[in-house]
Amino acid sequence: KLYKIATIPGDGIGVDITEAAIQLLEKVAEVDGTFKFQWENFDWSSKNYKERGYYMPPDGLEQLQKHDAIYFGAVGWPDVPDHISLWGLILPIRKYNNQYVNVRPTRILEGTKSPLTQCANKPEDLDWVIIRENSEGEYAGQGGTTHENSPHTIATELAIFTRVGIERIMRFAFETARSRPRKKLTMVTKSNAQRHGMVLWDKVFHEVAKEYEDVEWDKMLVDAMTVRMVNNPQSMDTIVATNLHADILSDLAAALSGSIGIAPSSNLDPTRRYPSMFEPIHGSAPDIAGKGIANPVGAFWSAAEMVRWIGKGELDHVADGLMTAIENVTAAGIKTKDLAGSANTKEVTEAVCKEVEKV
Amino acid sequence: KLYKIATIPGDGIGVDITEAAIQLLEKVAEVDGTFKFQWENFDWSSKNYKERGYYMPPDGLEQLQKHDAIYFGAVGWPDVPDHISLWGLILPIRKYNNQYVNVRPTRILEGTKSPLTQCANKPEDLDWVIIRENSEGEYAGQGGTTHENSPHTIATELAIFTRVGIERIMRFAFETARSRPRKKLTMVTKSNAQRHGMVLWDKVFHEVAKEYEDVEWDKMLVDAMTVRMVNNPQSMDTIVATNLHADILSDLAAALSGSIGIAPSSNLDPTRRYPSMFEPIHGSAPDIAGKGIANPVGAFWSAAEMVRWIGKGELDHVADGLMTAIENVTAAGIKTKDLAGSANTKEVTEAVCKEVEKV
Ligand SMILES: CC(C)[C@H](C(=O)O)[C@@H](O)C(=O)O
Ligand SMILES: CC(C)[C@H](C(=O)O)[C@@H](O)C(=O)O
Repeated sequence: KLYKIATIPGDGIGVDITEAAIQLLEKVAEVDGTFKFQWENFDWSSKNYKERGYYMPPDGLEQLQKHDAIYFGAVGWPDVPDHISLWGLILPIRKYNNQYVNVRPTRILEGTKSPLTQCANKPEDLDWVIIRENSEGEYAGQGGTTHENSPHTIATELAIFTRVGIERIMRFAFETARSRPRKKLTMVTKSNAQRHGMVLWDKVFHEVAKEYEDVEWDKMLVDAMTVRMVNNPQSMDTIVATNLHADILSDLAAALSGSIGIAPSSNLDPTRRYPSMFEPIHGSAPDIAGKGIANPVGAFWSAAEMVRWIGKGELDHVADGLMTAIENVTAAGIKTKDLAGSANTKEVTEAVCKEVEKV
Repeated sequence: KLYKIATIPGDGIGVDITEAAIQLLEKVAEVDGTFKFQWENFDWSSKNYKERGYYMPPDGLEQLQKHDAIYFGAVGWPDVPDHISLWGLILPIRKYNNQYVNVRPTRILEGTKSPLTQCANKPEDLDWVIIRENSEGEYAGQGGTTHENSPHTIATELAIFTRVGIERIMRFAFETARSRPRKKLTMVTKSNAQRHGMVLWDKVFHEVAKEYEDVEWDKMLVDAMTVRMVNNPQSMDTIVATNLHADILSDLAAALSGSIGIAPSSNLDPTRRYPSMFEPIHGSAPDIAGKGIANPVGAFWSAAEMVRWIGKGELDHVADGLMTAIENVTAAGIKTKDLAGSANTKEVTEAVCKEVEKV
């Protein structure tokens, strides 16, 4: 079986870790022997934007359609304003491809440590999956500026929440919670201050909750949620939050579980009409770009989730094996600096490739 | 000299800690001997809302005008939807009284510990003051609901940013940074995803920065900011962020410095045309309300900031003395459970009152 994957390495360390992920996935396919990857690379970077004036060509979004999945590195570079790079590349891809779910698991990997004193030696203390609404809310893309270049400029951001959008993310979140051993969902909101969109969010949550009586749930305000993540990480399992809230909470979650460099994300179109996209949650990290020292673990974990998704249940053992290989390597102390190790990207990649041959 | 203070204990532990703060401030005035407080209490609680149908009477906001400051406990109770209690009480007070700055300092107090392994024994590692925009942005209060009770409901939240609003908060933030030894400001944004309001925020920041060449500054995206707070707390000092971002970051900051129970907040009208309001950042905490075990430290620190504010420079020594008294008590191990102690509210209060007599 052949899987067609579009790769968009993007900027900075996105390039290093995409290369590492391809190398690893080629190894995985070789070892397994029942499937192959066909890669198509898209050079939609900030560097090329500076030269050409665009990230994607006009038919860019269509070009992605012939692929089974998209593998994304990172986008953003200091010489292009961030809102240009993001609205020119990653955000339209998420939106056009109906990727309304963003799944962001994180946990303390074998051989790594949480920066929290209470979790320092207990990996089982922090094991979360954040379900991020990925299509609307604060990222609806509306709003504008009036009286630009005047002393009384006004700029607005319009967050839009729809019943349809909320219902589908809540169902996905409950299904995820149900599929995990603890069957526990924490729903995050800010309905005290945001009294329209967040109140609808609350209301639809309660309706959907009735269909999942076997799932235990609770509710948190987003500000108090950060406190609970620090003080009581054991008390949570699956978490559902809006586009912006989950963006913030997932970075915090990764940091609390050891490093932003380990966390993966899956931008899913659960209807499978469009390709889904897989990317580590870290950015392009200009400060360490090109030095060959980026942590590839988030990229590898994202690759594992991509394999799981394209396999539609038939490659779960491959994805699981890949995760075991990654954790065997971190457990053996072959880790980059952010995880208190001294290995570089290449060393970690080769070590994981070797493990893949064994597991 | 007589200072008129309006107290609004509100709900839950708001009542306990307001009582403790009044007891302490009475002691402070008695020991100092040059000034007195005149208290007026407002019973604007959720309990009374249930009975009367309103939090404040129609002339509530006017009644507050004859006071030099407002001392606020906490608002919110499980049987009233949060958006009703907040938009019925705390948010209109902030808005009507031109309290466009919310100052939220936090640091590791003597005798307490950060939950971060790297900070566990180094109080100087975490010492921040967050300047929160308190009048507009995501709390502008606009937005609405269309097609309510239909399968295609749409709800919106409109965040509004004005040049005037941004300019004044940036100036306040730069002044704060300048007044502190490190002269360092970190500006938080999400201008990659929010391309109108946040872009204006960025732009005005750069303009104002030119007036403060002695202040060193850097910029962070709000999601990455949570990672930096966990990984590199030493690298920051003064922080400025929007209403919602700072709401989230200040809860996280308090948790990382030891407990949400210690952090104060000052809602300031820097023009002094209207009374400013002082409140701990924690909420009404229904789970421990009425048990006499709430941590009064956040309330005391807020009280110290109130004294500083109403004194207009003349009571700084009193406020400083109060902070010393608080830290002498935490250093002596007289702390509530959230700070790993076993004292109750009364014990901590009495200990701080006794210290005030000494310092
Ligand atoms: C790059 C940016 C648009 C993005 C987001 O805010 O969604 C990133 O922070 C993420 O978490 O995927
Ligand atoms: C009570 C609520 C409106 C409030 C806010 O969101 O501003 C609280 O979380 C705070 O931090 O003061």
